[in-house]
Amino acid sequence: MHSTMMDVPLSINHLLERAGRLFAGNEIVSRLPDKSLRRHSFGDFHRRARALASALKKMGMKKGDRVATLCWNHHAHLECYFGIPAAGGVMHTLNLRLSPDEIGWIAGDAQDRFLVVDDVLLPLYRQVAPLHKFEQVIVVPFSGAPVAPDFIDYERLLADADPDGFEYEPHAEDDPVAMCYTSGTTGRPKGVVYSHRSTVLHTLVASLGDFWGLRGTDVVLPVTPMFHANSWGIPYGAVMLGVKLVFPGPHLHPEDLLDLMQLEPPTLALGVPTIWMSLIQAFDASQDEGSPNQGRWTLPRGMRSLVGGAAVPEALIRAFDRHGIWILQGWGMTETSPVCTVSYPRAELRQATQDERYRRAAMAGVPVPLVDLRVRGDDGGDQPWDGSSVGEIQVRGPFITGSYHQVPVDPDKFTDDGWLRTGDVAAVDALGFVRITDRTKDLIKSGGEWISSVDLENAIMGHPAVAEAAVIAIPDLKWSERPLACVVLKPGQAATPEDFSAHLLKHGFAKWQLPDRYEFIDAVPRTSTGKFWKMKLRERFAGHR
Amino acid sequence: MHSTMMDVPLSINHLLERAGRLFAGNEIVSRLPDKSLRRHSFGDFHRRARALASALKKMGMKKGDRVATLCWNHHAHLECYFGIPAAGGVMHTLNLRLSPDEIGWIAGDAQDRFLVVDDVLLPLYRQVAPLHKFEQVIVVPFSGAPVAPDFIDYERLLADADPDGFEYEPHAEDDPVAMCYTSGTTGRPKGVVYSHRSTVLHTLVASLGDFWGLRGTDVVLPVTPMFHANSWGIPYGAVMLGVKLVFPGPHLHPEDLLDLMQLEPPTLALGVPTIWMSLIQAFDASQDEGSPNQGRWTLPRGMRSLVGGAAVPEALIRAFDRHGIWILQGWGMTETSPVCTVSYPRAELRQATQDERYRRAAMAGVPVPLVDLRVRGDDGGDQPWDGSSVGEIQVRGPFITGSYHQVPVDPDKFTDDGWLRTGDVAAVDALGFVRITDRTKDLIKSGGEWISSVDLENAIMGHPAVAEAAVIAIPDLKWSERPLACVVLKPGQAATPEDFSAHLLKHGFAKWQLPDRYEFIDAVPRTSTGKFWKMKLRERFAGHR
Repeated sequence: MHSTMMDVPLSINHLLERAGRLFAGNEIVSRLPDKSLRRHSFGDFHRRARALASALKKMGMKKGDRVATLCWNHHAHLECYFGIPAAGGVMHTLNLRLSPDEIGWIAGDAQDRFLVVDDVLLPLYRQVAPLHKFEQVIVVPFSGAPVAPDFIDYERLLADADPDGFEYEPHAEDDPVAMCYTSGTTGRPKGVVYSHRSTVLHTLVASLGDFWGLRGTDVVLPVTPMFHANSWGIPYGAVMLGVKLVFPGPHLHPEDLLDLMQLEPPTLALGVPTIWMSLIQAFDASQDEGSPNQGRWTLPRGMRSLVGGAAVPEALIRAFDRHGIWILQGWGMTETSPVCTVSYPRAELRQATQDERYRRAAMAGVPVPLVDLRVRGDDGGDQPWDGSSVGEIQVRGPFITGSYHQVPVDPDKFTDDGWLRTGDVAAVDALGFVRITDRTKDLIKSGGEWISSVDLENAIMGHPAVAEAAVIAIPDLKWSERPLACVVLKPGQAATPEDFSAHLLKHGFAKWQLPDRYEFIDAVPRTSTGKFWKMKLRERFAGHR
Repeated sequence: MHSTMMDVPLSINHLLERAGRLFAGNEIVSRLPDKSLRRHSFGDFHRRARALASALKKMGMKKGDRVATLCWNHHAHLECYFGIPAAGGVMHTLNLRLSPDEIGWIAGDAQDRFLVVDDVLLPLYRQVAPLHKFEQVIVVPFSGAPVAPDFIDYERLLADADPDGFEYEPHAEDDPVAMCYTSGTTGRPKGVVYSHRSTVLHTLVASLGDFWGLRGTDVVLPVTPMFHANSWGIPYGAVMLGVKLVFPGPHLHPEDLLDLMQLEPPTLALGVPTIWMSLIQAFDASQDEGSPNQGRWTLPRGMRSLVGGAAVPEALIRAFDRHGIWILQGWGMTETSPVCTVSYPRAELRQATQDERYRRAAMAGVPVPLVDLRVRGDDGGDQPWDGSSVGEIQVRGPFITGSYHQVPVDPDKFTDDGWLRTGDVAAVDALGFVRITDRTKDLIKSGGEWISSVDLENAIMGHPAVAEAAVIAIPDLKWSERPLACVVLKPGQAATPEDFSAHLLKHGFAKWQLPDRYEFIDAVPRTSTGKFWKMKLRERFAGHR
């Protein structure tokens, strides 16, 4: 017997047409380099994305060609998200925080034919240009300055194009729409290629009530860069449901974000822990008597906030909750589109204490629909979901990558039965909450026992004097490895190793788990995606190269 | 270039496993024939659905075999929703409100091999049995009475099965999971067959925040029968997100539903306008001084309510809103899984008056994601979305049927380019709100102009003396057709045709649009799915056969 359902492929083109038809009057707001706001409607967006598609086809872009973007978060970048695939192209978001060498290598590996670049990023482009030859460079006049004649002016290109005569490039639902490179803390970055199918499915799942809880009446502030796993996919969700977007452009300093929240109060904001931590510190400081910013800001009460990209310390969740803002933590990676797990308030926690809720909120959360998740122990078997048995997280699903662009499948990355090996170590409890204890490479093996560097870091960051902390393994003759804590103190604060030992013992750590050394540093080095870059600390303190 | 995403088929088996793993402690409550409540957990549900699947395989059920259900809304019916497809079978929900002849014909057309039937429905089964031979009949001991030895006892079957040893039947995502017959107001009922793919996609779309807004903390009361387009798909959504379900069993009288709401207050309830109308009338009557039910009920404030299956009169929306319950109207049909459009509070209506919000809420609403919708005029061209140009609604998408089970594709039902012809006539406005003006067969053509019977009905139902009203066309020598209104007055109320004419003129109808005749009747005849059965009224008043 056969299903009688229509065979209609999933397509992000449908989302674009939907936005143009249903939400033409809704707003997309972008902050420009001069901090003024530019307003477009979804009607403009629809017309402009189609105009871009039409222009790309006329420029000779063929189906499957890569069109790179080197842009901040703004309306034109959103137009690329939809306009490039509409013409059959693959949007490749380049990470502007990487070195020119890395960007050039990545553009070469992806064989990018065209580039869309912000005028304010042309100095970076000029450093990349000798390393990879883009056939055509389209410049977004983001700052408002005229575009030099050796480039194509994005605005002129759109003005000359014919969005009405445009016809979508036919496609199968497995055809690619976008690609993004992994951050590559080890080895070369690797390309992940998303399809119409994976993008639509990820958008539907992540938008559900328990996760993003996206609704047409929301106002979303994506601080997460559009070149990090597609801003976690929120641009697709916003277009699907006609949700007002407020793009911060290049202004990501806490004071700038707080100013923007006064102008366009969001109901949902997305960001990484580092920025959220500095944001709440700036806000709290402004509450002090005599602060130059006293009375400058209010926080949008009731706003939801999605934080991910690195472990969210419980202290951060508590700090925001004091202002009526609940942080939903998500976990995922470029390889997973990225939303894999979300820590949301479960029905089972209705009777839980507030402390228990915070404890859960500081976990990676529960696997979302369509994602299968398992934890594999050292013996290769599935670990029980008992909250304590740890192993590597492996995932599988229709929006998870099964390979990398032009790289032979590596057993270090994929299992024989086709699951992605995430390299994160975790325990899962009976409610399905994933608690990440470490990266496989960051575990500390002391006297045959494992010590979680992440647990130690989170506990140390709970100390009132600490701004941030990273724990690494140092070689030890007797124990093979022992923990060393690198601590950044808050301005004007002081604390001794003895203070931290007392603090950790009070929080349930055993004596043998306590760090042997503390190093007080100015800042934890970070990768381009904001993750702790422990390799740098190991080079500095552990004699590693 | 190729996408690197995994090729993992969509599957409702994933939803079942997810529920068992993540939500084992959450509750599923069923009201039994004696009005007591039975409680199962999602853990029980997971185990029992797998046990059912295991038992069906052992009984010789082969992949693609149809297993019919003749059941009220309860836990065992939910187990069939997942257990039958888990074993590779196709669950065929039989409509217990049809005549035995119709049920027998439908079971034969579907070639149902097995039947799962409630013990309280065995009298109906016995009338069906001579018309279609089921190989095996499994009886759910819903009332608690022992099952006669000539039948298989559902509970014993599950107790003897081995859920742990069970392995899912492998499937492609287009493989069927369920089938349902159209209500067939004209012609024979026709079978629609849903697939894993269409079911998962419909579940994801309908669950989104603007539509069902389903969350894990919800408590859902599905009054809509599980044999009407799968209770609109809510069982799948509830299992996906671990949402507590409260099943009313056979007790659908307004007083029973109000009693159940006291025992298990829902946050979301689904039903048809008729039941909702009698529910609010029963509640309002209980507020009267001296009512025997005074003080018996409170309404769950803040509850959302999804109403569909027939046009929702504005008066009903206002009546519930007075109690803090907002009605979301949905429109769809068995052929569309069924959610096609939903009327939800749009961002664009933030500044609208309350009257305007009610007006919009009384429309069919906005097409949901993945559904393409167009309105075709008499000339075959697309009508503009101007709020007034009417035509037939045609839809297309991955959860819309493209044919019927074993019926050659009929140009009356599908267009040459593959869209479903819904037979509903509507205008769409600039915000995408669909306003259904009639069934193609229910339009009244008077002097070359169309009169909408639905508009007249809704306006007459807004009159305070009216419980319900249906308008039909009667042949007219001069005008070809003229409207006749069949009116059901509320108990103790009186009104004259002159009163209605004045009321309609006040509500913007032209003189030529007013009904020529009024017939006062006891009740509007309804189809088995609760829709106005105008054919019966035409037979009675218009001399039609």
